[in-house]
Parts: sequence; C-alpha cells; structure tokens
Amino acid sequence: MLIVQKYGGSSVATAERILHVARRIAARIESGETLVAVVSAMGDTTDDLLKLAFTVTDDPQPRELDMLISTGEQVSCALLAMALQSLGYPAISLTGQQAGIYTRAQHQAGRIQSVKADRVRAELAAGRVPVIAGFQGITEDMEIVTLGRGASDLTGIVLAIALQADRYENCKDVTGVYTADPRIVPEARQLRDLTYEEMLELASQGSQVMHNRAVELASVYDLPILVTSSFVDAAGTLIHGEHELEERNKVRAIAHDRDVAKVTVRQVPDRPGIAANIFEPLAEAGVSVDTIVQNASEADMTDMTFTLGQGDLKRAEALMPGICAMVGAAGWSSDPGMAKVSIVGVGIQTAHGYAARMFRALFDAGINIELITTSEIRLTCIIEAGRLEDAIRALHAAFQLEQAEAGA
Amino acid sequence: MLIVQKYGGSSVATAERILHVARRIAARIESGETLVAVVSAMGDTTDDLLKLAFTVTDDPQPRELDMLISTGEQVSCALLAMALQSLGYPAISLTGQQAGIYTRAQHQAGRIQSVKADRVRAELAAGRVPVIAGFQGITEDMEIVTLGRGASDLTGIVLAIALQADRYENCKDVTGVYTADPRIVPEARQLRDLTYEEMLELASQGSQVMHNRAVELASVYDLPILVTSSFVDAAGTLIHGEHELEERNKVRAIAHDRDVAKVTVRQVPDRPGIAANIFEPLAEAGVSVDTIVQNASEADMTDMTFTLGQGDLKRAEALMPGICAMVGAAGWSSDPGMAKVSIVGVGIQTAHGYAARMFRALFDAGINIELITTSEIRLTCIIEAGRLEDAIRALHAAFQLEQAEAGA
Repeated sequence: MLIVQKYGGSSVATAERILHVARRIAARIESGETLVAVVSAMGDTTDDLLKLAFTVTDDPQPRELDMLISTGEQVSCALLAMALQSLGYPAISLTGQQAGIYTRAQHQAGRIQSVKADRVRAELAAGRVPVIAGFQGITEDMEIVTLGRGASDLTGIVLAIALQADRYENCKDVTGVYTADPRIVPEARQLRDLTYEEMLELASQGSQVMHNRAVELASVYDLPILVTSSFVDAAGTLIHGEHELEERNKVRAIAHDRDVAKVTVRQVPDRPGIAANIFEPLAEAGVSVDTIVQNASEADMTDMTFTLGQGDLKRAEALMPGICAMVGAAGWSSDPGMAKVSIVGVGIQTAHGYAARMFRALFDAGINIELITTSEIRLTCIIEAGRLEDAIRALHAAFQLEQAEAGA
Repeated sequence: MLIVQKYGGSSVATAERILHVARRIAARIESGETLVAVVSAMGDTTDDLLKLAFTVTDDPQPRELDMLISTGEQVSCALLAMALQSLGYPAISLTGQQAGIYTRAQHQAGRIQSVKADRVRAELAAGRVPVIAGFQGITEDMEIVTLGRGASDLTGIVLAIALQADRYENCKDVTGVYTADPRIVPEARQLRDLTYEEMLELASQGSQVMHNRAVELASVYDLPILVTSSFVDAAGTLIHGEHELEERNKVRAIAHDRDVAKVTVRQVPDRPGIAANIFEPLAEAGVSVDTIVQNASEADMTDMTFTLGQGDLKRAEALMPGICAMVGAAGWSSDPGMAKVSIVGVGIQTAHGYAARMFRALFDAGINIELITTSEIRLTCIIEAGRLEDAIRALHAAFQLEQAEAGA
C-alpha cells in the first residue's frame, strides 16, 4: 500500500507535535505501508509571515509574498525529515520544486500544470520517506508560486495521483467529518463515508475539511481520501465515489459559514443588462459575489440582493452609490452579520419533502430565512448570524443526524 | 558605478530596519548608481532555526539543516524587495538558486563552484534592483546548500566579480574597521583603508568584520571592498590591494579572539611521528586545532601545547587520556580560559623592534605570555582571558594607534 499523507499546520505546530507525527509515520511503515508525507507550515507561520510583509508595505507584490510565505513549508518539511531520521527512518525533505510540482506563474493562486515525480519515486526506491513542502510549486522559469490557502491538500492529491497511490490521507486535528460542527451540536456524529460531491458541497458551504480543487481532482481520478486524525488512532471518514446505498436520498450533514455579508439594491428598474451593470464594477474591484437573488417588488421594478464575504463588504459599499446612480436604483442597504446553513446529501434536491422539512424546522425555531439557494445535493438558507447555532441544532435534530446510518 | 552591497543580519533585523535599508538603497540609486543587494537572515533567525532543529533531534543531518536555515535569507530578501517596491523602486528578490549560485554538495559548508549571473543581469537590464538571498547556493541536482556562517559576504563577492562590479560594500552595524574594538579601547580610531592581507589577518584573529574566503576572493580579483554602516552615513574603511605608503611597516590594528582554549601534553618522548599521533585522532574527531607550540623541556622529552576553540575542548579532553597513553606522555592539562591578542600590519614581521615592543608592553602591564605565533604581517600572543582587555589597551597605547596616520 502506497499512502500519501498530508499533515496540516496544527499537526506540525511545535517540535513536540512534529516528533509525534514522525512516530505515527514510523508505526505505519512498521506495519508494511509505504508513505509519502506532505506538510503545511507550522501553526500560524503563514499568518505571521503575512503580518511581517504588511508591516513593510501595505501592498506587497504577489510574487514577493510567494517568495516569503513558501519558506513556512520548507521549514516544517526539514524538521519532520529530521524527526524521522532521529527515529532511525531514512527520510528526505523536498521543496515543491524538488518534488517536481510545476505551476503556471499565477502568484498566490498557482494552478498545478504538471507533476514530475521522478525524484520522489527515486527517493521511495531508495527506501526513504519523502517529506514534501505543501502549498508550493515552481514555474519553468524557476519562480516560486504558492497554490492558495489550504492548498497543501492539492500538493498531496496531485502527488498521490502521479504516484498512483492507493489512498490519500488528510491528517488533521479532528478525527473525521461530522454531521455538524461538534462544538455547536454535541450530538453530532462522525460520518463513516461521504461521496466526493457531498464533500465538495460541505467544503464550499464552510466546512474547512479539505481544499475544493483537491477533492475535485481526487474525484476525477477516483482516488480515495481518508480524513483522519494526526493525534489519535481513529477510523476517520472515507471520501470516495461509491454510493453505499444507491440513491441514498438522505441528508448527510449540516454545513455552515459565518463569513457572509449581504447587500440589497432596492427598486432597480427591471431592464435587460441591469445585472451586468451592477456586478461588473464589483467584479472589476475584485469583490467576489456569492449568492444573487432577484425579487420583483413592484411593476417593472426589482430588488436585487447578493451575498459576499465580510472581507469584501467595505469595497462593495464604496462602489454602491455609483452603481445605484448608474442603474437608477432607489437605494441600497447592507448587513455584515449574515450566515449560511445548509443541508447536504446526494439526491436530496430531487427527493420530496427535504426543503419543506428544512423550512419548517427553521420556522419552528423562530428563525427568519432571508435567501435560499440550492444545488443538486444541497439546500442553503441565509439567515441572521445571531441565530446560526440555533439553526444548526434545529436542523440536526429535524433530520435525526445523531442516529447511526444503515451499514455504519 | 555598479555596486554590490551586502546587509548583515542586524541591518535587516526588523521590518523598520528593512525599510531603512530600502531608503538607503533608494538614495544611492537617485545619485546615479546601479545597485545589487545581498541580504543575510533577519537578526537571530538562523540561530532560532538551529535551536528548533536541535529541539527535534540531537543530530540533525547537514542536508536537512541547509533546507531549514536557507529559509532565513529567503524571508529577508522578499521583505527587502517589498520595501523597495513600496518606495516606488522596481526590485525583485532572488534565492541563491535564482541568482545562479552553484555549489558542490557539501552541506553546511558549501563551496561556490560557478556563478551563472544571467538572471541577475537580466533583472538589472530591466531596471530592477536584484535583492539576493545570501549564504546559499544550489547543486546541479537542485539540492540547497548553505555556505557556512557569515558567508553572505561570499555570495556578494562572487556576484560582484561575476557582474564586474566597481565595488563591494559590506554594510554593517559598525561604521568601518577600527584600530581595536572601541568597546574595549575608547580611543580606537576608524581606519581609512587596509590591504587585503591586513584584513585577512584581522579576520582570522577574531575581528568578525568579513568572511575570510570572501576577502581572499576579492584580493584575487582586485575587487575593492568598502566596510561601512547600514545605519548612518560614514566614510567606511576601504579594503584594497594598494599600499598607500610603500613598505609602510606600521602596526595598523589590534585584533583579539576570546574563543581560545589550551591543552598541554607534558613530557612527550621526542620521537619522529609523535605530532601525527597526537593530532590525527583529534582531526578525526572533528577537533580543529589552531596554534601548536612544541618546547623541549628536558633531554629527549618535549612539551606540546596547542590551542583550539572552546566548543571543541570537551571532545579533545575526552581523547587526551588515550592519546597520552599512546605516545607515552607523562600527562596533560587543559585551560578553557585563554585569549589571543595580535598586532597586525604589512611588513611588521621584517621590521625591527615590533616584537620587542609588543612583549615589553605586555610585560609592563603584568601580563604573562603563554604562547607566541607569527605570520608575515601579524604577531600574536596567547594570554589568560582575564587579562585580554588590559592587553588590548596596553598595545593600542604602545603603538600609538589613537594617532591619525599620515595621509588619513
């Protein structure tokens, strides 16, 4: 069995934790497996380096930020290799470049172009444990590029695919994926498995379990992912392509996202092109708009509401007076304190009654629904942030997620 | 004028100092010069990273140490490039690899094999200030290698040679080279210039002004070096090949070194091969022996004394009983608390009276001389560490170094 493991920042936050991770890798090798480890930067290193950059300048160039923050993973892979060596296991740290992770020159948001895994294969053939700096690659011109926050998973997945690994393991400070955040819902239950699609929806709805592009890639190559603990022995949650029960039609988990702001443009004359006039200036200013809902409010007039990340709200607000004048809207308002709550499960959109049951549960809890969006396997309500935890608990109970699933 | 500047660790220890360095570089560019900057790691970064490594393992592999500590310079060069950009000056940070510093695979003590400065030249041609991570290079196999402590000067010198720069500037937290350490001798005077040979002797005798191999290389290529301040405008000290006055025959400065321990092997039978028997086991154990003095003590017997760095003393002491048994010595003793004090100046060995004047000055101050060594341009006495500062002051006064030199 060839396994590619990724250890996130909190798993390698201290020298002691790095030694702990090394002992866990050693135990797996003793059980006969072949391991490749990918590591994130130690704890808050990346944030600390970014803070340093913003002490020097308000507007650091993405290329220089990549040069700066790529050092975090280089430090942690060297330390984990040392820790393995100290336990008597041959190991070798590799930068993204040395591991053959080639990217295009999009600094701060590199996309992997190719993986030349010869060096990693050679190290494996020589009996060493390759310990690879996640989150980084190199262009053909030897420019260092980082792959975006949380993208160490991407490094791990592309290596697992290139090496034809049997499994990718995402080793974290949790034991797996839960039906809801256990800090909010004490009855939340760890899921035995999930489909790639369910994982993608959970991730895009705020569950910070795994990088979305990484799950998509694993799905394309049908690479099984185990989300598991770096700290304790636990079964973990397997993410794969198989539906254990065909057309399961079940709500699997409740996702939530606290980073939601809302802007409403009131009484916009309902002409063709109005949406473009509103959203093009926002896009040009780099504001990433999430959900858009348009309601007819009166004859030939419409209200347009959209959500966005709280970090983008100030920039959007600065543009709104100009946008309103341009489109002839009556006015606008904003609210920084919104949240999303979602139910996720393959088939729930086409099955009867899930939407009604969701709305009823929120209504019974006295929670007002501001916007609704859906995907094939997800139903999302946007609500006031202050009621988020009540909403998660109400939905977890309404769909009886605390009860073990069939076959689990 | 093309100038390669190096900024040491204390010059870039904080974001504020990095901005200060950027402003100084900007001012030089405004005055019409073309600059290349080489930087060390911020403040104590290298030591902090080494501590982290030794928290993980007692015996880190040199390759992994290189992977780890080379990140320090990568951080500081990115930050200095950002700082220059924030002032409106196009700049680009480059790792040792990107700057084309190729080395052999001697980890922790790499020797530069070749410099492929095409990228640096291209950045200069594009009007950018190249800001280069010192202290590091890359092998043909893309292995990261560091060049040994203080070797950012080496990076700077080889780049200056490759780029045919007009001058290399070593920018430090002092304003230049002094006749003696001003913290010990308040009357110490900054030297206007020194020859390469004088600088080499000062460096090898404990003045941590510049890396020795860097000075040697500059001397071979006749590259002028200016030792100057990162913080204030000051004339600096020029190191070059010309003697301002032919056969100057003057003591130029007093060097000292506190990191000296002494081992004496007593009553060794004076046979051929005895020195090899004593020093081979020490060399094999990695003990670096400095001065060796052999005194005939009685018929067919000799006393052998050698000095070494204090960090090597424990390892040497562990070997001494075995060595004494092997060579048939009567016994051995050691003293960790020694120091070296030297007078340095071209021609002083061949000139009359300097040695006598040195010994007289130390005798008058009541300081006992334990060992004496000489080179063409240096006279060194090894004395008890407790008397070092008295010795430096006595010699500074005896050779009237507080008085300005002719032409200065």
